[in-house]
Amino acid sequence: MSAYDDLMAYERDTQALGQVAGRLGWDQETVMPRGAAPQRADEMAALEGVLHARRSSSQVGDWLAAAQAPDATGAAMLREIRRSYDRATKVPAELARALAKLTSEAQGIWAEARTAEDVAAFLPTLEQVVALRREEGQALAEGGSVYDALLQDYEPGTTSAEIAAIFDAMRPRLVALRSAVLERPAPKALSGRFGEAQQMKLSAELARVFGYDFSLGRVDKAVHPFSSGSGIDVRITTRTAEDDPFNCIYSTIHEVGHACYEQGINRDYLLTPLGRGVSMGVHESQSRIYENQLGRSRAFTAWLYDRMTDSFGDIGLNGSEAFYAAVNRVNKGYIRTEADELQYNLHIMLRFDLERALMAGDLAVSDLEGAWNDRFHADFGYGVDRPSNGLLQDVHWSIGLFGYFPTYALGNVYAGCLEQALRRDVPDLDVQLAQGDTTAATAWLQQNLQRYGGLYAPREVIERASGQVPSEGPLLDYLDAKFSDLYSL
Amino acid sequence: MSAYDDLMAYERDTQALGQVAGRLGWDQETVMPRGAAPQRADEMAALEGVLHARRSSSQVGDWLAAAQAPDATGAAMLREIRRSYDRATKVPAELARALAKLTSEAQGIWAEARTAEDVAAFLPTLEQVVALRREEGQALAEGGSVYDALLQDYEPGTTSAEIAAIFDAMRPRLVALRSAVLERPAPKALSGRFGEAQQMKLSAELARVFGYDFSLGRVDKAVHPFSSGSGIDVRITTRTAEDDPFNCIYSTIHEVGHACYEQGINRDYLLTPLGRGVSMGVHESQSRIYENQLGRSRAFTAWLYDRMTDSFGDIGLNGSEAFYAAVNRVNKGYIRTEADELQYNLHIMLRFDLERALMAGDLAVSDLEGAWNDRFHADFGYGVDRPSNGLLQDVHWSIGLFGYFPTYALGNVYAGCLEQALRRDVPDLDVQLAQGDTTAATAWLQQNLQRYGGLYAPREVIERASGQVPSEGPLLDYLDAKFSDLYSL
Repeated sequence: MSAYDDLMAYERDTQALGQVAGRLGWDQETVMPRGAAPQRADEMAALEGVLHARRSSSQVGDWLAAAQAPDATGAAMLREIRRSYDRATKVPAELARALAKLTSEAQGIWAEARTAEDVAAFLPTLEQVVALRREEGQALAEGGSVYDALLQDYEPGTTSAEIAAIFDAMRPRLVALRSAVLERPAPKALSGRFGEAQQMKLSAELARVFGYDFSLGRVDKAVHPFSSGSGIDVRITTRTAEDDPFNCIYSTIHEVGHACYEQGINRDYLLTPLGRGVSMGVHESQSRIYENQLGRSRAFTAWLYDRMTDSFGDIGLNGSEAFYAAVNRVNKGYIRTEADELQYNLHIMLRFDLERALMAGDLAVSDLEGAWNDRFHADFGYGVDRPSNGLLQDVHWSIGLFGYFPTYALGNVYAGCLEQALRRDVPDLDVQLAQGDTTAATAWLQQNLQRYGGLYAPREVIERASGQVPSEGPLLDYLDAKFSDLYSL
Repeated sequence: MSAYDDLMAYERDTQALGQVAGRLGWDQETVMPRGAAPQRADEMAALEGVLHARRSSSQVGDWLAAAQAPDATGAAMLREIRRSYDRATKVPAELARALAKLTSEAQGIWAEARTAEDVAAFLPTLEQVVALRREEGQALAEGGSVYDALLQDYEPGTTSAEIAAIFDAMRPRLVALRSAVLERPAPKALSGRFGEAQQMKLSAELARVFGYDFSLGRVDKAVHPFSSGSGIDVRITTRTAEDDPFNCIYSTIHEVGHACYEQGINRDYLLTPLGRGVSMGVHESQSRIYENQLGRSRAFTAWLYDRMTDSFGDIGLNGSEAFYAAVNRVNKGYIRTEADELQYNLHIMLRFDLERALMAGDLAVSDLEGAWNDRFHADFGYGVDRPSNGLLQDVHWSIGLFGYFPTYALGNVYAGCLEQALRRDVPDLDVQLAQGDTTAATAWLQQNLQRYGGLYAPREVIERASGQVPSEGPLLDYLDAKFSDLYSL
C-alpha cells in the first residue's frame, strides 16, 4: 500500500467517526431523554477527543509528506486532509480544551441573560470568549488576519476583504429598497387555524416535491430546524406554530435544500473528505435557492396556494396573487431568523462588521451594544427596543462562532448567481414550478453543483455552475425586481 | 495523578464510547433510514476499532500493573478492566477481524436458509463459525475449557459444570410437569380486536407501573424488542400484533425489567466498568421476575384484566381468573421466544447441551440437526415439523453466540431465588400487585440487587440478595405450584 492509500484508509475511519458524532448531535436535539444530558456531554467529549487525536496524529503528517495524489480528485482529497491536519496541529490542545469548556458554559449564561434582558450579565463571559477565540485565531493565522483565519473554518479560501467588497456594494441598495418598501401599505397576512398534523403532512409532501430522498433520511421535529449528516443518512428537522404555517413550510424547504446538497454528492466520495458540502456559504446557497428563489417565487406559490387551501380550508386570502404577497410580506422586525429576503442580509452585514472589529481589536466588548444599536437604527430605520431583540438575539457569539455569520448572506449572493444561470438553462422554469414540479431545477443544481461535494473550492464551484465570478449583482437585481413589483415601487 | 486515577480517567472515555456504540445500535433498529445501512456498517466498524484499540492498549496493561485500588469498589473496577484487557489482548487481531466479517455475512445466509427451510444451505457457514469461535475460545482458555472461556463473556465467574448441575436437576421435573399439563384441557384463549394505538398506550402505562423512568429513557417500536444503554439513557423497544396484545404487554414488561436494572445502578458508577448489569444471567433475572413472577402472577393479572377490558372492551374472557389462565396458557409449540414459563427452560437446555458438545468437538455440525430433532422429541413429546421451527429458528449461532443461551434459563433460576426472598420481605406483595402497585417489589430489587451494578460477581449478587446459594429449587417449586394449580394436577 502506498502512503496515499494508507492515508485514505485511515481517513475513511475518521470520516465515519465524524458521522457518528453528527448522529449523536441529531439524537440530542430530537429523541434523547431529557435526563440524559450530562452523560451525553461526556460521550461527545470522548468522541471529539478521539477525532482530534486522529486528525492531529503525526502519522497523518508523515503520510501527507509522502503521499502522491493519483489524480486531480486525489489532490483535492489531500488538500482537505492537509487543511484539517494543519487546523488540528496549530491550536494548542490546552487552548482547544479551554475553549470547549468556556463556550459550553457561555451558552447557558447567554440564554439566562437573554431571558433576563440583562446585557451586563453576559458581557464578562463574552469578553472571555472573544479573548480565547482571538488567541485561537492568532495561532491559526501565524501573523495574518485573525478574522480571516477563523473564517476558513466556514468558508475556506475566502477572505474577509472579498466578502466586505460584496457586502459594501449591497448595503446602500438594500437600505434604499427596504426604506421604499416600508413606506408602502403592507399586503394582507394570512389567517386561519393551521393544525399541527396538517402542517407536518404538507411538510413531508414539500420535502418530496423538492427531491428529498426519504430512504436516505427522515423528518423530525426540533426546537431549531437543522439538517444533519452526509451521504446516505441525511436527516432534517422542522417545527410548527399553530398560527404561522410558513414557519414549518419554509423551514422544511430550507433544510431540504441543505439535505439535498448532501444527498446529491457523488457517491464515490462517501466517507472521504470530499463527501460533504464544501462550505457553509455554498450550503446556504442551496437552502436559500430552494427556500426563496424557488419556494417563494410567484410560480411556485401559485401551486402552493392550492395545496394550502386543500389542507387548511379558508386561509383569509383571496387567490394566489394575494398569497404570493403574503408569503413575501416585509415587516418591521428585529429578529434575523424571522426576517424576509430583503432585510435578512442587512442583519448579516451588521454582525459581520461588528465581529470583524471585535477580532481586530478595534471594538471593545463593552462598546458592543452601543455599536449594535446605532448600526441597527441606521440600516433598519427604527431603534432596538430591548436586548433580546438586539445584541442578545443570536446564540452564535456565545459559542464562539466568529466568521460564521457572513456565510449566510454569501449563500444568498451565491443563490442569486445560480438562479440567473438556472433560468438561462431552464427557460420554462416558471411553468414547471406553477405545477409544483421542481425536477428540472433541482436536477440542474445536483448536476452543476451538488455532486461535486468538496472537490472544488467554494467560489470555484459557484463560478463553474453559474458561469460567472460570484458577485452581488444578480441577487440585487432579483430583489429589486421582486419587491418593486410586489410593492408597486 | 496515580496510575489508578489515570486508568479510571481513561476508562471513563472508553465507557462513554461504548455507550455511543450502543446508541448507534439503537438508532439502527428504530429510526435509521433504510438506505443508510452500508454507511452504518462502516461507522460501527470504525467505532469498534477505536474501542478495541483502547481496551487492548499497552498503556492499560502498564496502568493495571502499577495501579493500587483505594478500596473494595476500586478493586472491583480493576477486576473488570483487567478482564476486558485480557479478553482484548488474548485474541489475535486477525482472528477478531475474521470473526466479525464471517458472522456479519453468516447472519444473512442463516436468514435466507431459514426462509427457504434449507438446513444444508446454512451448515457450511455454521461449520466455519464454529471453527473460528473454537479457535477464539482456545486463545481465551489457554488450555482450559473452550466453552467455559466463551461463557465468561456473558456470565463471568460461572462454569458450565455449575450450570449443567442446575439444568440436569431441572430437566426431569420440567419434562414431567410439561407432560402432565399438556394432557389436561387447555384454558380458553383471549379473543377480540386489539388496536395498535391502545396497545402502545397500555404499554407506556405498564412501563410506568413497573417503575421505568421516562426522563431517562423512551419506548419505540422495533421488529425484535430490546433494551439499550446504561445509566441515565436506557431505551427500550416493543412491538405490536393486532391479534395478540400479550406480545406487546409482556415484551414491554420484560424490557422494562432490563432497563430498570440499568437505571437502578448506583449513579456513582456512571461511565465506570461497574456502571452496567453484571451479567446476562443477572440481567435476565430482572426481566423475567418483572415479566413472570410479578407480571404473570394471579394478583397482578387481576388488576391487568380490568385495564384490558377498559382499553379493549370485550376480550372474550369472563373474569380475572379466566384471564389469569389465558395469560399462562401452555401450548404445544416449537419456538423458544413464544414459549410459556414452563417449556421455555426446556428450549434452553436443549441448546446448551448441543452447543457445549459442538465446542468440545464431541458433535459434528453435520450431525446437529438430527441431534436437535431427537432431543426435541424426547423433551417436548412431539417432533419438529420443519427447520424454521427447529435448528434454524434462532439467530444466535449464526452470529457466533455460543455460551449465551444458558444465561436465559439461569436468569429464570435466579428470578426464582429472588422471588422467594422478596415474598419473605414483602409479605403483602399480592395485595399490592392486585392494585397494580409494584413499588415495594421493584424497590426491593433496586435496593438488594440493581444498585450494585458490576460490583459483585453474578452468583454473589444473587446470593446476597436472596440469602441463599443460587439453585433450581425455588424456580421448580414455583412452577410446580403455579401450573399444578392452573391445570388442576
